[in-house]
Amino acid sequence: MATRMLALLDGSLVDPSTPIVRADDDGVVRGDGVFDALLAANGIARDLDEHLGRLADSAKILALPAPDEAGYRRAVDAVLQAWDWQAEPEAVLRLIQTRGPAGGQGNGYVLAAPLDAATRRERYEGVRVLLLDRGFEGNGIVDLPWLLPGAKSLSYGINMAAKRYAIANGADDVIFVTPSGAILEGPTSSVVLDLDGVLHTPPLDGILRSITIAELLEKAPAAGLEVKVGALTVDDLWRARGAWLLSSGRLIASVNEADGKPLPASPLDGALRRILDVPEA
Amino acid sequence: MATRMLALLDGSLVDPSTPIVRADDDGVVRGDGVFDALLAANGIARDLDEHLGRLADSAKILALPAPDEAGYRRAVDAVLQAWDWQAEPEAVLRLIQTRGPAGGQGNGYVLAAPLDAATRRERYEGVRVLLLDRGFEGNGIVDLPWLLPGAKSLSYGINMAAKRYAIANGADDVIFVTPSGAILEGPTSSVVLDLDGVLHTPPLDGILRSITIAELLEKAPAAGLEVKVGALTVDDLWRARGAWLLSSGRLIASVNEADGKPLPASPLDGALRRILDVPEA
Repeated sequence: MATRMLALLDGSLVDPSTPIVRADDDGVVRGDGVFDALLAANGIARDLDEHLGRLADSAKILALPAPDEAGYRRAVDAVLQAWDWQAEPEAVLRLIQTRGPAGGQGNGYVLAAPLDAATRRERYEGVRVLLLDRGFEGNGIVDLPWLLPGAKSLSYGINMAAKRYAIANGADDVIFVTPSGAILEGPTSSVVLDLDGVLHTPPLDGILRSITIAELLEKAPAAGLEVKVGALTVDDLWRARGAWLLSSGRLIASVNEADGKPLPASPLDGALRRILDVPEA
Repeated sequence: MATRMLALLDGSLVDPSTPIVRADDDGVVRGDGVFDALLAANGIARDLDEHLGRLADSAKILALPAPDEAGYRRAVDAVLQAWDWQAEPEAVLRLIQTRGPAGGQGNGYVLAAPLDAATRRERYEGVRVLLLDRGFEGNGIVDLPWLLPGAKSLSYGINMAAKRYAIANGADDVIFVTPSGAILEGPTSSVVLDLDGVLHTPPLDGILRSITIAELLEKAPAAGLEVKVGALTVDDLWRARGAWLLSSGRLIASVNEADGKPLPASPLDGALRRILDVPEA
């Protein structure tokens, strides 16, 4: 296996095979904690401030103590310094904070792993997706705080199961849809459609706030691209000039196929990659 | 804090403050794993076979290797032998299996903690609940395997958040309902209503298979009680002669109040407790 790194919040590096989490940490026992993930390329962590900000937001939604921001910066720096960027030019960094055992301290740390070859290939060659029913209508979830809308919690079991289901059924990834056919998001990505030359992405109800989408919204106007945030349906996907999944690690993947039906390659693909500063293949 | 125990699948006991889980175990990083929980009283584990069976079912739904049943029995036996039943006559045992790090082995173990005083009090004095929207209609979830219907996965973040929300708002527990007002389940319990002298509980769609409900269904006829499985609504709750939450640790708690409105105490309460073999207060 390629090199992985584990950094603690005091800035020390620990062999990842050394257990550091208690068996009774609610992070394990109940998936109770928060995380964020970002890409580091050639020694530089992308959008670290934004990811630390979202980690803090997630912690607040889960009523966890504020994450030790300085500690996460120390841990990220330790990884950036020690990583072999010649051998592995891109690394995915996961910032993790567990709730801890009842009455005890949570665990905060940073994990680093090389961007794996399959993910890298998807960035440049695209993905086949399945449209999977997420079981709920997105609208209104934002008003139900006990469902943790907007938080990246450690309880990612359904997202992982959906990806496994896609792979077991000849696809690479998933777009979650609602029972009535609205487009939500991927298990670890956000959806963008090209509708008649305008980029569209769903509103933040029932889905996670995406840092890559925020970057797109900020930078698109200067590049002459219009981006609209609004409800999208599966019918929109079928009539789109192209579709993408955006995320912090893979950055972008064009959707080549959905439920076995081919989708066109949008003429805006190159412009989108330049806006998001996606490395050349 | 009261004594807690950690037993590994080889039957050894380990100090729970010793970290045994890797930081990169998907059980932590993604809440990816399964668990089950049961009560042990005075040296005897209740329904151990059924809980091991459900753990195996959960693992199958998550495409995990079959749990080491003999190992879990060794770990449970180690706890039952070492526990001080005089000091703490009831213990909650959690059987846990994580997916492990990418390409590595998962972690299997048993945690034991005393049944806490608040939970014990709820068993005999009842609970105040909030009715919280679960965000989805239950019907049809059973046909969406990527949502892991029927599995007790480690991704319990929403269940924990719902309980925190209830406690922060002057209640003790939660009954999840659908947007259209159907009754689902509690975050860690199943719902039973007394409607005109017949016990009712919702069908297994969008909710977890309960071992306590199975016990009720099996034993009620001999005690002269009828139990029906069928869709229930919030209106049914308001017209019920009584309501309970059933679970493996607390066993039973009558619902005294829902969304601030008092509910009656069913005349079937005593019979139900005898059927479920609930210890005297």
